[in-house]
Amino acid sequence: MSRILIALGGNALGNSPQDQLKIAKESARPIVDLVERGHEIIIAHGNGPQVGMINSMMEDVNMPFPESVAMSQGYIGYHLQNGILEELNRRNINKPVVTLITQVVVDDKDEAFNNPTKPIGKFYTKEEAEKLEKEKTYKMVEDSGRGYRRVVPSPKPIDIVEKESVKALVEKGHIVITVGGGGIPVIKKGLGYEGVAGVIDKDLASEKMAELIDADYLFILTAVDRVAINFGKENQRDLEKMSVEEAYKYMEEKQFAPGSMLPKVLAAVEFVKSKKGRRAIIGSLEKAEDALNGDSGTLIY
Amino acid sequence: MSRILIALGGNALGNSPQDQLKIAKESARPIVDLVERGHEIIIAHGNGPQVGMINSMMEDVNMPFPESVAMSQGYIGYHLQNGILEELNRRNINKPVVTLITQVVVDDKDEAFNNPTKPIGKFYTKEEAEKLEKEKTYKMVEDSGRGYRRVVPSPKPIDIVEKESVKALVEKGHIVITVGGGGIPVIKKGLGYEGVAGVIDKDLASEKMAELIDADYLFILTAVDRVAINFGKENQRDLEKMSVEEAYKYMEEKQFAPGSMLPKVLAAVEFVKSKKGRRAIIGSLEKAEDALNGDSGTLIY
Repeated sequence: MSRILIALGGNALGNSPQDQLKIAKESARPIVDLVERGHEIIIAHGNGPQVGMINSMMEDVNMPFPESVAMSQGYIGYHLQNGILEELNRRNINKPVVTLITQVVVDDKDEAFNNPTKPIGKFYTKEEAEKLEKEKTYKMVEDSGRGYRRVVPSPKPIDIVEKESVKALVEKGHIVITVGGGGIPVIKKGLGYEGVAGVIDKDLASEKMAELIDADYLFILTAVDRVAINFGKENQRDLEKMSVEEAYKYMEEKQFAPGSMLPKVLAAVEFVKSKKGRRAIIGSLEKAEDALNGDSGTLIY
Repeated sequence: MSRILIALGGNALGNSPQDQLKIAKESARPIVDLVERGHEIIIAHGNGPQVGMINSMMEDVNMPFPESVAMSQGYIGYHLQNGILEELNRRNINKPVVTLITQVVVDDKDEAFNNPTKPIGKFYTKEEAEKLEKEKTYKMVEDSGRGYRRVVPSPKPIDIVEKESVKALVEKGHIVITVGGGGIPVIKKGLGYEGVAGVIDKDLASEKMAELIDADYLFILTAVDRVAINFGKENQRDLEKMSVEEAYKYMEEKQFAPGSMLPKVLAAVEFVKSKKGRRAIIGSLEKAEDALNGDSGTLIY
């Protein structure tokens, strides 16, 4: 029996509420397969399309970005807990499943704050963008020829405010959905925390949570079954296993695409290095059980 | 030491994200006073203005109402847990505080479904309203001379899906924020639950949660310090105590305004009747500690 943190992608959750609920129900099957085997499951997820949609729609009421993340956690978490519970009931497994609103602490001196790179929300004309830069001190950049978008920093997670609650529930046998969208980004301020506009990489946030709750496995999901080197070339090789040393070598060779496979490999390596015995798997959700048995996915050790 | 469920109003939380965060921080003080006395605290809250805002802004993406409630739980819960944690830190109290996304079960045969009464979302012209009635089978009514609004049913809560998670955390000493906005309304459907458009009265949902987690006190907050009879008249009398029998008598005399004090009294009475020793208080948040000592609020016994 292992404690496994599964990191789901936000893009994989579809583009409409109706799609998302359907996908949440489908995702429940392989997740509950693992529950049925006796594993403790914690679920993290991305929120890129969802928080972008929420933040854009809420622009007229000046909804800050951290609050938009909190909304996306509620919205996505509801579908996941609803879908997983139905699958648990189908198999007569009596296990509570619940979503926790989660704040992730970043360092206000993180260098990312000097170099915002992550586009969020909707597209603007050049004139609108200049107005926003002046009036709201947003940083705006031209994005893929479709117009101007606000960019925010992507700082590193250093702690998770609600870790004790996650741990308490996992230890009681509950399935917990947490750090949605990489968490609500907050900085330490006085005696408390203050929300900041920023997008925390969901794989790094998942990694931090996996460490803090002492998980055995970090399971990072992708659309492909295995990590590959020489990806898309004639000599492409899918990896069954990859040691930390090999991972560093491949990263030096720039084998992994930034913004896609690279952050997943980085998170996996960080988790494996954090404590003896910890393992990470990068693979597809459908083959999660196979991956734990070594028959799919890439094991990072 | 008592287990106390506090039901905060949604209107009291202000109209903008900035106001709401400020009010959440102010509300934290009297709540943490109770924590400091050793009480176990569970917090429920309304979401009327917030879910209306979210649902209106999200209309273009056809966001269903239950999903809008889930978003409001994340949005309000984040502010409350953030504000309460800061106040706990100020007093050197080491206690986790967290928000759970909460689904509340209603009966699909609840007569409220035949008679939707609760207005939600934005105002429409008569022509728009007729179009929505035809295209989406919404029920639309003219609301206070300002235009037409969608009305949804207000069914009774019969169970709470995440009750075991709330209980587990409370028993571990965590402060839990739950059943936001009366909960995400769901009906039993097959092996799971399905979201339905409806607004569950937040005082009744709080009452149900208080029962399920075996609270000692249900504390329903209002803008006034005490429940009054002959309200606003020369012979107005503020009540220090009110037995269940007296409450029924006053209700028969129509002493309490529907949609305002009446649902609070009904929830209080239901909780007191549910088990020997359970007590309810209706009063103001600022005087919560006094109310527990009998020096403010109205005790229902």
